[in-house]
Amino acid sequence: MDSKDEGSAPCSSPVCVHNPHLDALKEDILYHFSLGTETHSLQDMFGDVKFVCVGGSPWRMKAFTEYIAAELGMEDPKSEYPNICAGTDRYAMYKVGPVLSVSHGMGIPSIAIMLHELIKLLYHAKCTDVTIIRIGTSGGVGLEPGTVVVTKQSVDPTFQPRFEQVILGKTVVRNTDLDQSLAEDLLQCSKELNQFKTVVGNTMCTLDFYEGQARLDGAFCSYTEEDKQDYLNKAQEAGVCNIEMESSVFAAMCKLSGLRAAVVCVTLLDRLKGDQLRSSHEVLHSYQQRPQILVGYYIKKQLNAKAKDS
Amino acid sequence: MDSKDEGSAPCSSPVCVHNPHLDALKEDILYHFSLGTETHSLQDMFGDVKFVCVGGSPWRMKAFTEYIAAELGMEDPKSEYPNICAGTDRYAMYKVGPVLSVSHGMGIPSIAIMLHELIKLLYHAKCTDVTIIRIGTSGGVGLEPGTVVVTKQSVDPTFQPRFEQVILGKTVVRNTDLDQSLAEDLLQCSKELNQFKTVVGNTMCTLDFYEGQARLDGAFCSYTEEDKQDYLNKAQEAGVCNIEMESSVFAAMCKLSGLRAAVVCVTLLDRLKGDQLRSSHEVLHSYQQRPQILVGYYIKKQLNAKAKDS
Repeated sequence: MDSKDEGSAPCSSPVCVHNPHLDALKEDILYHFSLGTETHSLQDMFGDVKFVCVGGSPWRMKAFTEYIAAELGMEDPKSEYPNICAGTDRYAMYKVGPVLSVSHGMGIPSIAIMLHELIKLLYHAKCTDVTIIRIGTSGGVGLEPGTVVVTKQSVDPTFQPRFEQVILGKTVVRNTDLDQSLAEDLLQCSKELNQFKTVVGNTMCTLDFYEGQARLDGAFCSYTEEDKQDYLNKAQEAGVCNIEMESSVFAAMCKLSGLRAAVVCVTLLDRLKGDQLRSSHEVLHSYQQRPQILVGYYIKKQLNAKAKDS
Repeated sequence: MDSKDEGSAPCSSPVCVHNPHLDALKEDILYHFSLGTETHSLQDMFGDVKFVCVGGSPWRMKAFTEYIAAELGMEDPKSEYPNICAGTDRYAMYKVGPVLSVSHGMGIPSIAIMLHELIKLLYHAKCTDVTIIRIGTSGGVGLEPGTVVVTKQSVDPTFQPRFEQVILGKTVVRNTDLDQSLAEDLLQCSKELNQFKTVVGNTMCTLDFYEGQARLDGAFCSYTEEDKQDYLNKAQEAGVCNIEMESSVFAAMCKLSGLRAAVVCVTLLDRLKGDQLRSSHEVLHSYQQRPQILVGYYIKKQLNAKAKDS
């Protein structure tokens, strides 16, 4: 696989870039990671990565690293997991064995910068057979708070499964399909775990948390409670189970680069019943652990199966 | 001023919200700040705020707080500036006298969440006559790296001065005008300082750092070097001096809420000559201090003028 494929050839197991200019670069500086091909031996550092977990909050991604280390029996006796991107405060990155954990901030632009540099990192490191999962939080639509949603399709605010990328001032529409077999595997894991409810459904991805998600509690709101309910009811009819702010570009970019991808978000509230997060800190915290528990179980199961095969 | 104005009445000196639902809330939880109207006395904490400086990086906003404290002779002898949003890792917030400093992450969605909650915070705190300035970094178009750009108009990737907000699935176009007298005041301050070059010009705001800004070094690139140059040349002809990722929604939201607003970004490189940030850490760091120095000078001058008047 070389980097000159422009999207027509199917990517097999390597991580693909689609950029003929990259090979001409003497050095590739992954600026927002504070890493680079001349300053770091990316293949030595990351060549064994098989699972990448990403989420908005740096604290949560550090907590996930500690959790997965314990699950896999790979704890550092001193419990120290250094931030690989310590040279910057844009993103945080941690690694335990084959599992890389990276924060992406909030919103499509923030996760897109991270994914461009992550995909190049995995490419430079010659990683193969990589599965990537976004573990996040979301607003639910007609679901009991605490329900975990594995995304079937990421849809836009008009409920269409697409992501619009502006390139040189022109809009290009990209596919937001996610890996259906991975989604089913994750659902099966939830059944085996039997700790909380998990569903597979559509996820609406918006550019704004307040007006963009029909909330009544932003600084600006020009619509009524009834307008809000109408919109969310239409979303529900279109199969939308939850709403967040990163899944569409995540699905589009992972598909382009041949990464097996899933989005696993817990719902912190039911948007049909309210807008503000009124649950206690402890309840919200326990909800936020559910995607971590589910994905941790999945990774452990995969690694055990692989160990048996070999 | 009450909160029921729906955008038609001009806002005077208070900070305006345009949301008739807000007054019905028993409690307003500013979730991404980990603050709320029932848990915090916002008027006591923030009632004296006259200047708000925002920027992407939490580290930079902390450094700005230390810098402005020294400039205003308000240093804490122990040099401790606690993060007011310590309960969350979404944003960082610091305060010294009348100056509030808040980080906003990268991209339109991330700064929009922060601004919704900041505007509500200033409204609940009954702040008046607030000036807000974004201090950031950007890619320059035909400017010597290190040049500071004060934004005249924020334009979209087709060079139009507008921001598209999606509300209930429909697109609403908002004005991105910034305060022209504030821009002129800042330019005058730069002349008085005489430490670096500052220009007033248009700023292009994009949703993506790589393909969205015609970079050749992302994970994906479907255009040629010539396509890139054509696009950036057209941007330059449209008066674009620099490119960043937050100015359009910042301008739109500040205008709606009656905040006197400016965008002051340093250019870290000339995009007509390259895409990667190859300058040394020291050079980039010194560039990043320029907006801080300029805005610090402006705030000091304003406060001195006010002290003389009274």
